[in-house]
Amino acid sequence: MTGQTAQAAARRSQRAFTLADVAATALFAWEGARLAAEAGLDLFGIMVVGCVSSLVGGITRDLLLGDTPPFAFRSPSRLLAALVGSGVALVLAFLGAPAPDELIAVLDALGLALFAVTGAQKALDHGSNGLVVVILGTLTAVGGGIARDLLLGAVPSVLTSSVYASAAAAGALVMLIVVRLTARPAVGMTAGFVVCAGLRLAAIAFDWQLPHLVVR
Amino acid sequence: MTGQTAQAAARRSQRAFTLADVAATALFAWEGARLAAEAGLDLFGIMVVGCVSSLVGGITRDLLLGDTPPFAFRSPSRLLAALVGSGVALVLAFLGAPAPDELIAVLDALGLALFAVTGAQKALDHGSNGLVVVILGTLTAVGGGIARDLLLGAVPSVLTSSVYASAAAAGALVMLIVVRLTARPAVGMTAGFVVCAGLRLAAIAFDWQLPHLVVR
Amino acid sequence: MTGQTAQAAARRSQRAFTLADVAATALFAWEGARLAAEAGLDLFGIMVVGCVSSLVGGITRDLLLGDTPPFAFRSPSRLLAALVGSGVALVLAFLGAPAPDELIAVLDALGLALFAVTGAQKALDHGSNGLVVVILGTLTAVGGGIARDLLLGAVPSVLTSSVYASAAAAGALVMLIVVRLTARPAVGMTAGFVVCAGLRLAAIAFDWQLPHLVVR
Repeated sequence: MTGQTAQAAARRSQRAFTLADVAATALFAWEGARLAAEAGLDLFGIMVVGCVSSLVGGITRDLLLGDTPPFAFRSPSRLLAALVGSGVALVLAFLGAPAPDELIAVLDALGLALFAVTGAQKALDHGSNGLVVVILGTLTAVGGGIARDLLLGAVPSVLTSSVYASAAAAGALVMLIVVRLTARPAVGMTAGFVVCAGLRLAAIAFDWQLPHLVVR
Repeated sequence: MTGQTAQAAARRSQRAFTLADVAATALFAWEGARLAAEAGLDLFGIMVVGCVSSLVGGITRDLLLGDTPPFAFRSPSRLLAALVGSGVALVLAFLGAPAPDELIAVLDALGLALFAVTGAQKALDHGSNGLVVVILGTLTAVGGGIARDLLLGAVPSVLTSSVYASAAAAGALVMLIVVRLTARPAVGMTAGFVVCAGLRLAAIAFDWQLPHLVVR
Repeated sequence: MTGQTAQAAARRSQRAFTLADVAATALFAWEGARLAAEAGLDLFGIMVVGCVSSLVGGITRDLLLGDTPPFAFRSPSRLLAALVGSGVALVLAFLGAPAPDELIAVLDALGLALFAVTGAQKALDHGSNGLVVVILGTLTAVGGGIARDLLLGAVPSVLTSSVYASAAAAGALVMLIVVRLTARPAVGMTAGFVVCAGLRLAAIAFDWQLPHLVVR
């Protein structure tokens, strides 16, 4: 009975996790598609950039881990989430609806944190060394945004502005350390998630910036 | 005797197919190298961009399917076709020969359609789901052009203008549907080819554009 | 006794080789990070571009060979070298120290040559055909610089200017020919290294440029 309860709890937790991941995928697609619409791309280009924004981080991680075809291609759920998110952006842009920028920024911070810890966890599962765990966690979280900005002809915003990629790296690092200390992935992922989302939200609230070094 | 005739026919059909694929590779290389020459790249850069234009779509498809080394690297034929196509562009640019733009546009539509259906077919052979089949067919057809434009510092033209990538996606989708219905790949590839090439040629003839949504 | 001496010599040679490779990685990272600092990226972006500059060439080669996870991810040494090189660039930029541009150009030529011949050798070991050997040798040497320039929003300098990628290709080609003729990889790598570094240094000294073909 207790065993069954534990199993049911694990299933519920797995389902909540998948739901969060699908939601984050749709959100990242929405953000990417909005930027593509603003950049003047056509309908097809908008959908492509939306999908790229939400999926390329995880796909690149999987290619680097040698885990092909990438997870996003193995079932339609992530692709559908990306298409739906991009489609919502299209419709809202068509209707001229003002975007709830603050809400999006908060949700984006949560998506960033989720992708950072899940990417780091996957690298850890594949036996990667600590540096690679942090790099792949960060790449999972920001790779889509980098590809999006390259497609739109811009220097990737994650490399130029504010605490974004560094928050993802901090979250992945905290996850790694906690997992090494406690051997409990769930605890590590929770700690990493809180650190990444907290740093990112604080950076938005207090307008934190990392220093720039402009050399003559 | 009949079996031998059928085998000979299959061999001829296979040979015609390979020839078309090699020709499309050379054509895409020619187009890419021309754009690179116009963009002021040096001799080496022109050859590189020509090869990238014609090969990166298929290479990316193969990486995503986990089929490495990519097909283009397994025999020299595609690489040689890309080098020859780029070399022809170099010589013609050097001679200042006017490019037969309309002929190129028509041949490009045929190459696009060929790459879209062969890419989709390969994804199908690897057991990909329907969304992935359409995505990889499209990526095979337009991936080289996207990489070319990124190298030349431009927003990829396939994302901003006219019915190009969407024609490739339509061709891949039609192929998928016909194969699902008839279980005959050759019929599906023919149908997808006709739809993609037809859409693209019609888009050129009638100057079709997908709508853009420029948000304030 | 002689066997032990030979083994010790092989170990020393292997160690010298690894040391050179680590040093070249750090140097490429330093150069990339300097450019990123000049481009106005923040601290995190500078470190990222430094690592990308030094590692993406080899990582792309390994992905294309199907050798995953890529070599750079299998032990921390290359990643650490990239981080240290980027960090040195950061500190020097912060101190406003003038960069020893001529020394860097010479060291860069040596790093280019080392990466070109090691990349070509690895492709050869994987049974690639001759064209692929030259392409992957070149890509190992210049792939990081291409990715760096794309991230910084510039047309890759290796495609537009001077004898750089073509020196790498020449070095890889010479290595290939010498290995085919002599069946001695060490001889081939030495010859390829000398040709690549020599061409590159001569190009700097005499300001060699490949022709450009600017078409109307």
